[in-house]
Amino acid sequence: MKIRELNERVLIEHITGSLTRNGKNTVVGAGDDDCAVLDIGGDDYLLVTTDMLHRKTDFPQQMSGWQIGWMSVAVNLSDLASKGAKPLGILMAIGVPPDTELDFFDDIIKGMDTCARSFGTQVIGGDMDSHEELTMTGTALGLVNKDLLIRRSGANTGDIVCVTGNLGTAGAALILMQKNINVDQEILKALFEPIPRINEGIALAKTHAVTSMMDISDGLALSLHDLAKASGVGFKIYEDKLPVIMDVKKKLKGDELFEAVVFTGGDFELLFTVPPDKINKARNACSFTVIGEVIKEGIFIERSNGIEPLKGRGFEHF
Amino acid sequence: MKIRELNERVLIEHITGSLTRNGKNTVVGAGDDDCAVLDIGGDDYLLVTTDMLHRKTDFPQQMSGWQIGWMSVAVNLSDLASKGAKPLGILMAIGVPPDTELDFFDDIIKGMDTCARSFGTQVIGGDMDSHEELTMTGTALGLVNKDLLIRRSGANTGDIVCVTGNLGTAGAALILMQKNINVDQEILKALFEPIPRINEGIALAKTHAVTSMMDISDGLALSLHDLAKASGVGFKIYEDKLPVIMDVKKKLKGDELFEAVVFTGGDFELLFTVPPDKINKARNACSFTVIGEVIKEGIFIERSNGIEPLKGRGFEHF
Repeated sequence: MKIRELNERVLIEHITGSLTRNGKNTVVGAGDDDCAVLDIGGDDYLLVTTDMLHRKTDFPQQMSGWQIGWMSVAVNLSDLASKGAKPLGILMAIGVPPDTELDFFDDIIKGMDTCARSFGTQVIGGDMDSHEELTMTGTALGLVNKDLLIRRSGANTGDIVCVTGNLGTAGAALILMQKNINVDQEILKALFEPIPRINEGIALAKTHAVTSMMDISDGLALSLHDLAKASGVGFKIYEDKLPVIMDVKKKLKGDELFEAVVFTGGDFELLFTVPPDKINKARNACSFTVIGEVIKEGIFIERSNGIEPLKGRGFEHF
Repeated sequence: MKIRELNERVLIEHITGSLTRNGKNTVVGAGDDDCAVLDIGGDDYLLVTTDMLHRKTDFPQQMSGWQIGWMSVAVNLSDLASKGAKPLGILMAIGVPPDTELDFFDDIIKGMDTCARSFGTQVIGGDMDSHEELTMTGTALGLVNKDLLIRRSGANTGDIVCVTGNLGTAGAALILMQKNINVDQEILKALFEPIPRINEGIALAKTHAVTSMMDISDGLALSLHDLAKASGVGFKIYEDKLPVIMDVKKKLKGDELFEAVVFTGGDFELLFTVPPDKINKARNACSFTVIGEVIKEGIFIERSNGIEPLKGRGFEHF
């Protein structure tokens, strides 16, 4: 059997199934959440996450070096954000084609540095490698007070489902680029310079109001499925409540709009659940949109023509 | 200017020069040692290191999946070992060609798992990516008591230079393979299944006898240059003291033998310095060979026909 015959989620389950699990320091191990969580004593948990990005899949030709550097850090910070963690440092292993212009490479480093600094941290280490295809593997370390860690697994039936920011902006950029349609800078920036929700994640964690959280960079639908699985619940969301900016609604219609908002991914927003009696506490932390509720089982979306099941389709590498 | 016009060390200095350095938790930052070192309170420092390996450069066709997995973990553990640290966990981001056989891939995972377990740790996270060339980026986390951290920068004139294990075994395997000469299993294993010196590193650190240490996976000569630069000293080593197994001496002669032992790299041994009055304390920690002494400046090797400068040449990606 070839790797390509399995999808990414099945493959990751396959891997984690054959690993020796959870040493004495491991609170959350491989495959179970956005970050691994370690208890090394003290008041905080240590969180760590890694993401491999590469030219063909993750960095469209239109991206500048600076944006490549920014995104390579941001994608890792977004995983920390989803656990309510404060960043501690970034490592970046860079595989770079030897005929890369030094100026372009310098822009990558500046983008990395700026993104890390923007969220109160810095690049503390890395590796350099000569590689045919530009490949950036980042690792982010973070800390979160043991009382404040938010896992994927805490959602309860009756909780309210929320999301930060807007949905479908990055997806719209991707879809429009694929069709060679000129894309506005604002829309393009959502795809090329995603803002990891570090500040929102930390603020939400401090409210003690959030029962589960994850980032939605693989798309809303796939993330709902991941969260549902981890928490043993279901979700019902409402299409007309999904936050979408006017520019995206102008550029995309019908199925294409739905695809961008629900499936395509690329928005680095936080999806989280809050018990109804704590929603006001959460509102004090940051702005967000209520998009649905936690139900016993199944994942559904209410659309203008009725309720339909929402498939777990989104950004997958295989 | 193209990336290929700079060598790896110059490029890394170039990068670290343009990064915002050393946040409040950073004890040792990017480019300054085998690992980044963070102070997050408590009795221990947190160490973290990352290494990107890929098929063409790092995994000869003869390597099994299991050996690829083993090496990808071992190369990161070796960096922890050189600072005297105890491993806390491994993350592995894997870029894998979609037409890879699942059996081969499973062997990679088993090799990773076995190597981690052999040194008291485990794979706690990672990432999967579809990639044209098999690419493995590992990250290792470790802890070391603040009193026991050994840096590259502590060597003093008059210290004795020591190395664990044997030199040139992995180099011999590489050279023989390139010449299509049949290679003994013992020699091949040194290259394909390197043993990170975790136990030796921890034991040496506990003696308080070691003033500087690093791993020599990039070769003895380049590592001596790195250590000299970090400590602001020089080295004189003796060719006839370099530990080389008989099998290697039988297979390689003259310049080729010298190349394998001093320049080629691939041996995951520890190079370290000890003040003369503490050498017996160090001997209690593990077995090693004295190969020279720390001098004021310059890096020299004494050979049968006299003393000559030792160039800083070794394994570099650019």
